[in-house]
Amino acid sequence: MLGSTHGTLTTDSRRARTVACGEHPAQVVHGRPAEVGDLDVSGRPLHAEVPDLDRFFRPESVAVVGASDAEGRPNTGITRQLLAWSERVGARLHPVHPTRESVFGIPCAPSVAALPGQVDLAVLLVSDPLPVIDELAAAKVRFAVAFASGFAETGAEGAAAQERLAAAVARADGLRLLGPNTNLNAFERFREDLDGPAIALITQSGHQGRPVFSLQELGIRLSHWAPTGNEADLETADFISYFAERPEVGAIAAYVEGLKDGRAFLLAADRAARRGVPVVAVKVGRTETGARTAASHTGKLTGADAVVDAAMRQYGVIRVDGLDELQDTATLLARARRPRTPGTTGTTGMIGTTGTTVPGSAADPLPEGVVVYSISGGTGAHFADLATEAGLPLPTLSEAKQAELHQWIPDYLSVANPVDNGGHPVGDRRGPRILDAILDDPAVGVLICPITGPFPPMSDKLAQDLVAAAERTDKLVCVVWGSPVGTEAAYRETLLGSSRVTTFRTFANCITAVRAHLDHTRFTSAYRSPFDEAPRSPSPSFRKAKALMRPGQQLSEHAAKQLLRAYGIRVPREQLVTSAAAAVRAAGLVGYPVVMKASGARIAHKTELGLVKIGLTSASQIRDAYRELTDIARYEDVSLDGVLVCQMVERGVEMVVGVTHDDLFGPTVTVGLGGVLVEVLRDSAVRVPPFAEDQAHAMLAELRGRALLDGVRGAPPADVDALVEVVLRVQRMALELGDDIAELDINPLMVLPRGQGAVALDALAVCR
Amino acid sequence: MLGSTHGTLTTDSRRARTVACGEHPAQVVHGRPAEVGDLDVSGRPLHAEVPDLDRFFRPESVAVVGASDAEGRPNTGITRQLLAWSERVGARLHPVHPTRESVFGIPCAPSVAALPGQVDLAVLLVSDPLPVIDELAAAKVRFAVAFASGFAETGAEGAAAQERLAAAVARADGLRLLGPNTNLNAFERFREDLDGPAIALITQSGHQGRPVFSLQELGIRLSHWAPTGNEADLETADFISYFAERPEVGAIAAYVEGLKDGRAFLLAADRAARRGVPVVAVKVGRTETGARTAASHTGKLTGADAVVDAAMRQYGVIRVDGLDELQDTATLLARARRPRTPGTTGTTGMIGTTGTTVPGSAADPLPEGVVVYSISGGTGAHFADLATEAGLPLPTLSEAKQAELHQWIPDYLSVANPVDNGGHPVGDRRGPRILDAILDDPAVGVLICPITGPFPPMSDKLAQDLVAAAERTDKLVCVVWGSPVGTEAAYRETLLGSSRVTTFRTFANCITAVRAHLDHTRFTSAYRSPFDEAPRSPSPSFRKAKALMRPGQQLSEHAAKQLLRAYGIRVPREQLVTSAAAAVRAAGLVGYPVVMKASGARIAHKTELGLVKIGLTSASQIRDAYRELTDIARYEDVSLDGVLVCQMVERGVEMVVGVTHDDLFGPTVTVGLGGVLVEVLRDSAVRVPPFAEDQAHAMLAELRGRALLDGVRGAPPADVDALVEVVLRVQRMALELGDDIAELDINPLMVLPRGQGAVALDALAVCR
Repeated sequence: MLGSTHGTLTTDSRRARTVACGEHPAQVVHGRPAEVGDLDVSGRPLHAEVPDLDRFFRPESVAVVGASDAEGRPNTGITRQLLAWSERVGARLHPVHPTRESVFGIPCAPSVAALPGQVDLAVLLVSDPLPVIDELAAAKVRFAVAFASGFAETGAEGAAAQERLAAAVARADGLRLLGPNTNLNAFERFREDLDGPAIALITQSGHQGRPVFSLQELGIRLSHWAPTGNEADLETADFISYFAERPEVGAIAAYVEGLKDGRAFLLAADRAARRGVPVVAVKVGRTETGARTAASHTGKLTGADAVVDAAMRQYGVIRVDGLDELQDTATLLARARRPRTPGTTGTTGMIGTTGTTVPGSAADPLPEGVVVYSISGGTGAHFADLATEAGLPLPTLSEAKQAELHQWIPDYLSVANPVDNGGHPVGDRRGPRILDAILDDPAVGVLICPITGPFPPMSDKLAQDLVAAAERTDKLVCVVWGSPVGTEAAYRETLLGSSRVTTFRTFANCITAVRAHLDHTRFTSAYRSPFDEAPRSPSPSFRKAKALMRPGQQLSEHAAKQLLRAYGIRVPREQLVTSAAAAVRAAGLVGYPVVMKASGARIAHKTELGLVKIGLTSASQIRDAYRELTDIARYEDVSLDGVLVCQMVERGVEMVVGVTHDDLFGPTVTVGLGGVLVEVLRDSAVRVPPFAEDQAHAMLAELRGRALLDGVRGAPPADVDALVEVVLRVQRMALELGDDIAELDINPLMVLPRGQGAVALDALAVCR
Repeated sequence: MLGSTHGTLTTDSRRARTVACGEHPAQVVHGRPAEVGDLDVSGRPLHAEVPDLDRFFRPESVAVVGASDAEGRPNTGITRQLLAWSERVGARLHPVHPTRESVFGIPCAPSVAALPGQVDLAVLLVSDPLPVIDELAAAKVRFAVAFASGFAETGAEGAAAQERLAAAVARADGLRLLGPNTNLNAFERFREDLDGPAIALITQSGHQGRPVFSLQELGIRLSHWAPTGNEADLETADFISYFAERPEVGAIAAYVEGLKDGRAFLLAADRAARRGVPVVAVKVGRTETGARTAASHTGKLTGADAVVDAAMRQYGVIRVDGLDELQDTATLLARARRPRTPGTTGTTGMIGTTGTTVPGSAADPLPEGVVVYSISGGTGAHFADLATEAGLPLPTLSEAKQAELHQWIPDYLSVANPVDNGGHPVGDRRGPRILDAILDDPAVGVLICPITGPFPPMSDKLAQDLVAAAERTDKLVCVVWGSPVGTEAAYRETLLGSSRVTTFRTFANCITAVRAHLDHTRFTSAYRSPFDEAPRSPSPSFRKAKALMRPGQQLSEHAAKQLLRAYGIRVPREQLVTSAAAAVRAAGLVGYPVVMKASGARIAHKTELGLVKIGLTSASQIRDAYRELTDIARYEDVSLDGVLVCQMVERGVEMVVGVTHDDLFGPTVTVGLGGVLVEVLRDSAVRVPPFAEDQAHAMLAELRGRALLDGVRGAPPADVDALVEVVLRVQRMALELGDDIAELDINPLMVLPRGQGAVALDALAVCR
């Protein structure tokens, strides 16, 4: 029933503006790696600027401003700790104090300016760091840490002080500041005796980072701890980018209360994704949703937390809720990471300024298969039940492998996976052979051994065998130590003494971590940075669309549809009329049957108000409808710019596609099931631009009602390709007009049967 | 448009069979407490038979059949352990062996028959216990434990042997058997030095029970452990019923791999619910769904695991997935239980044979409010975020309470809830005052203090204060010890040394346990046993319905609707006709417009086959439709018993209501959203009869699309009362015809606007 031509978009501004619909894809692949300084069409950066923090974590010269050795002063303890740390990392420490001669026997300088040579790091123990900043700038100090509190965390006055501090740092060329309101966490004692890839830790709260840091006491290697505090300058994103370049870092663990800059976070996550370095993050704010929820439908669909969730998933950041999950997941992912070729990190200036992907691993990724091995059939069944429910792939072992295992395991026990050894084989030479045989299977990448209850004659030997087997393989060996006691030697000494076996305390955390490992591996191997493909210059559609914008206003339905047409999104044939006679003429042009709707700049909920008339088949019906619509509008005190006479579109699947502005990430794109479902089930998916076609498909896959698009109860499959195309065109609008649009809502988008396209039957647009 | 009268049901068989619809509720409240021996209308018991297991757990005389003291024999170790246990519980142990003179210096009897006096418990260490059963019966032994394995767990042959064993026990009047394939867990060493309400443990696998049992090492009291093994006789349900009567039991923890008898489990859970004793259970089988999924729509909606889930919820059983959650939740619930009046348990014969509810607590339930108290604002915010998301109620403290707290806590810190003390007040006399002030608040029932990182100067004192404060209150005090290390003195000694503070290791488990406590308290206080109100004798509907059943066959739509009519469920006016002329006459009687449908015993998917014609408004349309329907039926090779001419029903909300047979629990009732949604979203809820009206409402509340019933986008609210009434009438069918119905499916049930009822537009019934 539809057949109109309309505009499509292209990035080549010299091309004809209007071509037949569907010939040209909306997603234009640039494919040029993003570089520092590159901006996308919205003016947002396309590349993380990575600060070189080598001299922050390993300075040669440290000034301590406000150093003290006076009994009972808080700064005395801090100075003592910094002294010990400086010794460990081989830095010279210079106490700075206006009046003291010396501190702990080291001569004091009255100011940083008075110090000889380059100072890499100045630790500011003064209550007001602002006056010191200019002095540091003059002395070309590279890094400063401000411990003082009383800034943005205390309210408006503190926030203003923090602004002044940030401005001073920005003026100080080359100086980077950590804090204020931070602490000594970066200068703690890191165990040097642990090997393997390490966890690098970033926390906004020192207290909340402590459990991850103390993993060292359980034999898990930590390489860095960045306590970002109020983030007046250096922020979480800077540390993610930096840690992603460090060869010793196997995984980045982050505890985030709020993000300073959504785009910077995504660019940092993109950097980690390119390098295959997993980022595991707690982000507080699950329930702080909906404060500025927009009034229209898509606005209601996704609170800000859903946007955070989506943004993280787009870049492979693994979001967890508890600190225990953060610990366990980061540990496994660090240990899953095989050593990188050294030399991929620079030591001076900005690092890795090209977008080239550095392979994360020297070898191919491990196979996905997970095998559960236990000394009790009950334990194996229980674990397998939960693991399968969580989506872990537990392949059935081959007949040949099962026969091999039955050399050592009695025939009446099942070894298909889970492998139940019945207990006894653990006690003798069969134990290690079984483990090697499982780990040797080409389908197997992960072996999980839940040890529910410790029974030293068996579990001690089993723990030893697992540790030894893990040394002989690249594959992951996980143990769940089920005893709540946790003082057993097999746990404390044998298992925690291994840098290859990862030991969990709960089934759930083991499953979460293994799932994260498999998801991240899959994500990384398929990852292509959307920033490389983001549009850098506006499409011809942009100018047309820009002319339609009315800052601060809601557009009429007709104008909103013009906006969609400008971006090549199909709308019904329609005419705006201001008399009954014109309506009848319009119907003749549009073609019967028609739909008539009141049109005006501020009309919402047209259907509920009776401002839509459908299925009109004659001139007299049209005249009646015109009269009724204008009557209702008068009665409801709605101001009209006319009445729309629209082509009636055949039945399809009703969807909603829209743009909402998120304070943290800017414009976001939402797609959901339309009609009644959008209100009742809020079944929608959101993404932060830029994203590629695969993400548009992934959005649809997230919908609980996805099957409606495939056709149910004899309905034909819907034109999913056309729907995806609309999502990508809407993304293009979001990128080009993002900051001008408060809200855009196509509701419904009627997705017709496959091959027939999709039509925006109604649209709402609010300009900023 | 509808107005037919039809049958309703009543339990008084002497009443008139047909009365005006809606005058009499389907749910007839008997209100007579169920007693032992009572059966419901389906012949199922209404009351748990509770074995008196006092002499099992505390025997005076124990025979060990197959006792040994020979070096290296497995039975020697077992005999030694039983000797030690007998000494602890004050039982005389009698070794029984056909040839030995004595075992460990105790004279051996050649058989149980040869022992003097009453033997309470016989432990059978022989590989085939069957021949010993008759001997035990003759000697009037009360309990036997069979350790031998090789029964049902090994396959068909073993299952047959187990059947023989069970039959022998059933013949032996008064003898009860634990096992076979069980172990020594019931006879372990229970710490006597711990006080407060205890956890009683039931496990089908000894290995899986070990972590819960070892909670004793963390200061948590355990009172019993029942390792039920293959459950040839005594089963999980028996132990739940028994433990629910024991005054020292605060919570029952169960690890269940499979249930022997669904009804017995529910009756036991009912018993615990009446007494307010929480049952926390792991039930393996999350992913073993759908093996015997029925072919029709409601059948697909709920796998067996969903039924287990629902059944447990109906009786307040708290289902958890991990053994760590089982431990933590059972611990908190045991500690939340205040001491019961002694004397509510009998010591001889069957206990508690009346259905009277024994109050679970001497005092009123605690208030629901949860307060989060921390020494770090970040920790409090993080915990509160997750707790709120999980539905814990965190009330804002009153202005007065906040002012009180600000006496000790600086003004710039928030004490609204979470209460952030900023750290310092912990170190001095303010610490205990703050805790008392919070616990004194009448809105507060639970105080949770997450201690993320141990910092001994603060956390040691805080731990001591929390333990002391918990001693001064009835309210619950919970700590989350966030350090993964777990060797700290504040944790090991102070916190674990308290029987009043419950200490968790993760935010998630604390939240799960507190949520379970609040849910269970609410559940218990509102609990009325559905067994007391279950129908005991058939309704008049039953005979009418029974006459319609055709064993092994699917009924025609017309016959299935007769079945519904028999139970007072409204169906459209309709006539079954076998000629076009009769169809026209029928339409005149039914009233235009009409729907015409092919009717036959084996027709499914009528709409897809084109066997439904709607909106027919004239005689000629009816003649055309008749011809077309019979043509299609011939073409599709469908055998018809005629064509239905049905009244057309106005639009409402389409629902699905049905009965499916579950192998474990028998007939179940399902309600879901109908139409396309039933296939796409599988949005449904299931219950096991008997259940009361509140559960029918709860089923609707579970539906994600529940709001559709309230009216969306200007649609009027649906007649929810009528829907609930249909669910209860369908339940009545399930109870009365349950074992004759393989499947019943009303799809759609059109729920009209409020006050207008609900009409079953189509129905499918398959007889067993």
